[in-house]
Amino acid sequence: MAALKGRMVIGQSGGPTVVINQSLVGAILEARRHDAITGILGARHGIAGIMNEDFIDLTLPSKEQLETVAATPAAALGSVRLKPGKAECERVFEVFRKHDVRYFFYIGGNDSAETAHIIAEMARDADYDFCTVHLPKTIDNDLKVTDHCPGFASAARFVALAFMGDDRDNAALPGIKINVVMGRHAGFLTAASALARQQQGDGPHLIYLPEREFDVAAFQQDVRDTYQRLGRCVVAVSEGIHDAKGNPIATTGERDSHGNIQLSGTGALGDFLAARVRDAFLGQKVRVRADTYGYLQRSFPTVHSEIDAREAREVGIFGVSHAVKTGENGSVAIRRLSNHPYASECFVTSLSSVARESTEMSDAFIHVNGHDVTPAWLEYLRPLVGELPRMGRLG
Amino acid sequence: MAALKGRMVIGQSGGPTVVINQSLVGAILEARRHDAITGILGARHGIAGIMNEDFIDLTLPSKEQLETVAATPAAALGSVRLKPGKAECERVFEVFRKHDVRYFFYIGGNDSAETAHIIAEMARDADYDFCTVHLPKTIDNDLKVTDHCPGFASAARFVALAFMGDDRDNAALPGIKINVVMGRHAGFLTAASALARQQQGDGPHLIYLPEREFDVAAFQQDVRDTYQRLGRCVVAVSEGIHDAKGNPIATTGERDSHGNIQLSGTGALGDFLAARVRDAFLGQKVRVRADTYGYLQRSFPTVHSEIDAREAREVGIFGVSHAVKTGENGSVAIRRLSNHPYASECFVTSLSSVARESTEMSDAFIHVNGHDVTPAWLEYLRPLVGELPRMGRLG
Repeated sequence: MAALKGRMVIGQSGGPTVVINQSLVGAILEARRHDAITGILGARHGIAGIMNEDFIDLTLPSKEQLETVAATPAAALGSVRLKPGKAECERVFEVFRKHDVRYFFYIGGNDSAETAHIIAEMARDADYDFCTVHLPKTIDNDLKVTDHCPGFASAARFVALAFMGDDRDNAALPGIKINVVMGRHAGFLTAASALARQQQGDGPHLIYLPEREFDVAAFQQDVRDTYQRLGRCVVAVSEGIHDAKGNPIATTGERDSHGNIQLSGTGALGDFLAARVRDAFLGQKVRVRADTYGYLQRSFPTVHSEIDAREAREVGIFGVSHAVKTGENGSVAIRRLSNHPYASECFVTSLSSVARESTEMSDAFIHVNGHDVTPAWLEYLRPLVGELPRMGRLG
Repeated sequence: MAALKGRMVIGQSGGPTVVINQSLVGAILEARRHDAITGILGARHGIAGIMNEDFIDLTLPSKEQLETVAATPAAALGSVRLKPGKAECERVFEVFRKHDVRYFFYIGGNDSAETAHIIAEMARDADYDFCTVHLPKTIDNDLKVTDHCPGFASAARFVALAFMGDDRDNAALPGIKINVVMGRHAGFLTAASALARQQQGDGPHLIYLPEREFDVAAFQQDVRDTYQRLGRCVVAVSEGIHDAKGNPIATTGERDSHGNIQLSGTGALGDFLAARVRDAFLGQKVRVRADTYGYLQRSFPTVHSEIDAREAREVGIFGVSHAVKTGENGSVAIRRLSNHPYASECFVTSLSSVARESTEMSDAFIHVNGHDVTPAWLEYLRPLVGELPRMGRLG
């Protein structure tokens, strides 16, 4: 079969990561190697840019410029939070026809896979020769099929380092410290805080995940118990914790463009929990502080996992190479081959297997007490994050 | 004059920094070289540890262990927030006599210099041969006399990197982003955000410092103007901003052990300002988020300024060497010798010149518009923070 010939469009969608541009640059550099790809258009702000025909010619940037982009956090093409409806997808498809676009690569999470899926079906129904490949990206690590998602391990490294330092800070000035970590439905990133522990007694001492119901009274008791035992307590809590009915524990009431309640970019949950801890220690002089790690987790430069950066690049290369070779739609996924030494490979799964639904942490990763992780979780996570510094101690 | 002979005590006080243990290790290693120093006692949690005779024998740890400690954030001996009164200082002095302590090194800010000063005067009044040296440390950079404070440049590097990444994030998903930075009375750390700018239009677009009155209506107008011009706006704001009467703009009402209103460890100010921005855009669909960088700024491992780490080490070495050589009380300070290439040296100033009062940013560093910095500020700051990565762009 002769390769599909025509232009390609590539776009980025959803929350940025520290390595999302590695996938972009991997795809661009691979595309430049193939005659079948007659032009490389970067869509500014994803689907929105396609609808507005707002493209960057990605045949122009030098290799050197692209390598600087690859090492830069956050989506270099601009991102978007838009789940296109039928009319919007029709407009996208019209633009693709107009510009003889035959390849579409969309870097994002399960919503982006869904968008890619809809457009792929539209092309099929119209008998338009076309190939759509979704390139996975999310710090939440909540995509189906793949062993893990590009972007996650770097965010996990940031969280692990943050807790390592914060635990030393808390040991120096003892008290109760609550750190709120990103992850609306999946606790993977919050659970990464467990990597901060190097010695008996190290924090985080309590880890609350959205996979379990959060009960304020039980939380207060857990903190009291830990404080009594250690004289301090470091808590990792997911921004997505909720009560038995699924309601968030505390929010500002704001909603994003998907109608989701705003969890990130506010200190509301941390401050609420700090107040409940103060209630639990009423009359006692206890130092209580809360930090919300916020967007630093997905955009802080110079802190990344080497393996994550490499895999994000490979995902971009593999996606383009697969598209040119097979012309088949799909979503790139990662298969773990070995933990010691770590090895992985890319493969392609169907768009429908990744679109729409997301995953969460399996029971095997969550301690039966509901506020900690298991050794299996650390075994899964450790190779992805890379070597962490030893925290020095005295006495 | 023969050197004073006896034991030394060293302690750490106040908020941790990423390089405070460099000063500790510098002092220990230098002390080991001098026969005049017959024992090296580390006070656990500063003055509190001295009163309880809670000491670690610092002649024991290996050089290798000490180097790991030096590279670890947060006070390895434990820290304390305690301004001792007369009775407490008398107890400290009693312990010093009991253990034949002739040297006292206290690593901390102006409160620690004040404590060292009181104890030095007590020793003088009692005709007890004794030498006290204060070793400066604070991410706030608010000590008098010294050109800058160990600990500041590493925190400034963290803030600069955080804004670099966050500005790329904000460019990818445009909106209004407010980041709250530490610094109760001095805006140095908030002003370090300006280092994130690499190209025209880069954020932070507005910088609010505690050295200027904060007016909510003017802030709303500044944000509106910036948003109209650029379609987005990144704001750096000090946790210490206050109104014309000196009242904090927003807090939880909690107070620390010094009676200071709690500013760090809460998202209250960020959430308040985000709400005011939403008010200013009433009826318009604008994405508004606030992050409070919190304790990450003073304790995040692997992010530090090389010059800061080196100077913090030198301050410890110099303080001990000075004490043994001269027996004179004082506070170690840094003199900048040159900016291109950067060079500095340590010297000793009197305890009274550093104790109690602190400094803030000079008018020469603050833009006349009241919400930005000057080129003089960048000239001062840039050499301390070290090389920053280039942020890559497309189109």
